[in-house]
Amino acid sequence: MKVIVLGGGLVGGPMAADLALDQDIDVTLVDRDAVRLQELAVRHPRIQTRKADLADVDNVTALVADHDRVINAVPGFMGYQTLQTIIEAGKDVVDIAFFEEDPFGLDQLAKDRGVTAVVDCGVAPGLSNLLVAHAAGQLDHTESVLIYVGGLPRVRNWPYEYKAVFSPVDVIAEYTRPARYVENGVEVVRPALSDPELLEFGEMGTLEAFNTDGLRSLAATMDAPNMKEKTLRYPGHIDKMAVLRETGFFGEDPIEINGVSIRPLDFTSKLLFPMWKLQPGEEDITVMKIVVEGMLEDRPTRHVFDLLDRYDKATQTHSMARTTGYSATVALRLLAAGLYGDHGISPPELLGRDPRCVEFMLEGLAARGIEVRQTVEDDDRK
Amino acid sequence: MKVIVLGGGLVGGPMAADLALDQDIDVTLVDRDAVRLQELAVRHPRIQTRKADLADVDNVTALVADHDRVINAVPGFMGYQTLQTIIEAGKDVVDIAFFEEDPFGLDQLAKDRGVTAVVDCGVAPGLSNLLVAHAAGQLDHTESVLIYVGGLPRVRNWPYEYKAVFSPVDVIAEYTRPARYVENGVEVVRPALSDPELLEFGEMGTLEAFNTDGLRSLAATMDAPNMKEKTLRYPGHIDKMAVLRETGFFGEDPIEINGVSIRPLDFTSKLLFPMWKLQPGEEDITVMKIVVEGMLEDRPTRHVFDLLDRYDKATQTHSMARTTGYSATVALRLLAAGLYGDHGISPPELLGRDPRCVEFMLEGLAARGIEVRQTVEDDDRK
Repeated sequence: MKVIVLGGGLVGGPMAADLALDQDIDVTLVDRDAVRLQELAVRHPRIQTRKADLADVDNVTALVADHDRVINAVPGFMGYQTLQTIIEAGKDVVDIAFFEEDPFGLDQLAKDRGVTAVVDCGVAPGLSNLLVAHAAGQLDHTESVLIYVGGLPRVRNWPYEYKAVFSPVDVIAEYTRPARYVENGVEVVRPALSDPELLEFGEMGTLEAFNTDGLRSLAATMDAPNMKEKTLRYPGHIDKMAVLRETGFFGEDPIEINGVSIRPLDFTSKLLFPMWKLQPGEEDITVMKIVVEGMLEDRPTRHVFDLLDRYDKATQTHSMARTTGYSATVALRLLAAGLYGDHGISPPELLGRDPRCVEFMLEGLAARGIEVRQTVEDDDRK
Repeated sequence: MKVIVLGGGLVGGPMAADLALDQDIDVTLVDRDAVRLQELAVRHPRIQTRKADLADVDNVTALVADHDRVINAVPGFMGYQTLQTIIEAGKDVVDIAFFEEDPFGLDQLAKDRGVTAVVDCGVAPGLSNLLVAHAAGQLDHTESVLIYVGGLPRVRNWPYEYKAVFSPVDVIAEYTRPARYVENGVEVVRPALSDPELLEFGEMGTLEAFNTDGLRSLAATMDAPNMKEKTLRYPGHIDKMAVLRETGFFGEDPIEINGVSIRPLDFTSKLLFPMWKLQPGEEDITVMKIVVEGMLEDRPTRHVFDLLDRYDKATQTHSMARTTGYSATVALRLLAAGLYGDHGISPPELLGRDPRCVEFMLEGLAARGIEVRQTVEDDDRK
């Protein structure tokens, strides 16, 4: 099988490396940064690299033509157009561009071209969607879905105790964009950073969860009256972000300083970038907890999924890249294995309805050291 | 007596109003803001107003010529040059410009002109210096001086719970300028915002104190091996300031954003200005506590001074303006009464060596509702 990975960033590189471990996969990685491609090619001789500007859709069309399947890992702002081009080329695709547009705008196109397009296929959204659907499939009725997820540095440095593989602008969006969730069957909107709660995460200690706008497709595809997604940080981070937001440091309207006009968000991102950027070799951790509650044979039943993944010292791969990227590469193998092939746009919860797909995903992740612990509790007392 | 007040800001106005209460004082207030002067003249008919740019020393020379005594309340950056001009004109002066330069650079000039110039004559520095010297004068040996002072809004609004009559840039300087104090007879330098401690202030509840660079002249004039000045805020303020400082929001070196160059401090001041500005009618409180410890007749003895002053609703005068401004206007009357007349530069601790001056100051402030409570404890056990 010939696979092409579009985008060689902090997640794209580890995905290509993972695919290259399979002797029956020929993998090509595309990026516009030749230096970065060269570094990867030296460490992973089986990866073929191609330097190209993926913002040009003609390049995308030409590149994917010679491949069987595609992973779309371009930056979010160009994700939708790239996915559209891949679908028009008739190629099955797993997408982790996490673009803001509604992917279902491409559903009919994908059906017309006979393409299977699995979107939002990282860890959360991604694996989380699959597990929610898996739990719901084991219940007669699903009452509530709660997803907690966060990527954190292992070493906590004051003041933010936060690092990421993403740009500060994208992280700040989580602190400003109102959070949509479902409560008593109705979509409600709450401010970002709202409803903080402290939770225990075993050896991670106490983490703080707050509302973020992360349900995405689940809000439409899942039939559950209560659904919420919250982001995890070390305690205290939320307060600092709330102070910065309240003061106007995240503002998107330009303000005038000494005769020059500047967007506060641009200014603040510039200052935060060096503090928040996860450096090569800097260890991180991914934490996820999913709670799905409902009724099975008239008994309240609760499914809990726990994931705690760490930086891989052997391959120097960040955990955020592992959990996001390997969810996508295992899903790609799942498509290749013929376990899922519906034409159209498929968020991962559609794969999660089939226990064989869930088994394939969890086994694939476990083989890469990413263990999801599932517990099921039923309650006779109620 | 003809008195001229140079600078009609949030402190200058109330000082002129206070002086105008004395029928034997003719007071003139100078500012470059005609609207502000007009408002004051309407409310206080005995105040004469003069619109002038005090950055022009020729204006200063011309204005003070016709007056007996001067209060210098111009902004700090032009304070030194204005004081020099006043001294050259041969006028006794009380100064609350709180400029950064060393006032003793004008000592010889003042002596040559036969001028009494009382500098740094607000509440702290100012009244604090006078009280420290007063306590030290009642001890055989002074071991330590500790000054706590803060101006705070009565109503605490998240996130900063802070408002001031000063500009954010001047307040931020307290959070960035290293604090110099005296420890075991040696001058030591500690970072601003360091050594936080929580202290109880009666009905104010718990306040947080931190090192600031506020000893000024006391470091040179007082013979005590341990001296420290700390600023008071509602708890939590320090942490927020430390986060902003650490992130670079108070930086004075320009950074480049989208092709334009900007000083972080300018940007941050712009955002903080509307949050920190004490508004007309907004109630504030001044808190000060001074502890002077030493030996008297071989017994450890401790003098404690407590001040808690509130916004004056009747005259709509901020407490920070009352405590700062009335310290200066009472000192001016003290000079007029002939209680102090040394030629040269005199910080208030020189007045504090004479119990009659201290009595005059405390009675003058008490007549304006500003009560200083003094307690003396000696300890037989040691």
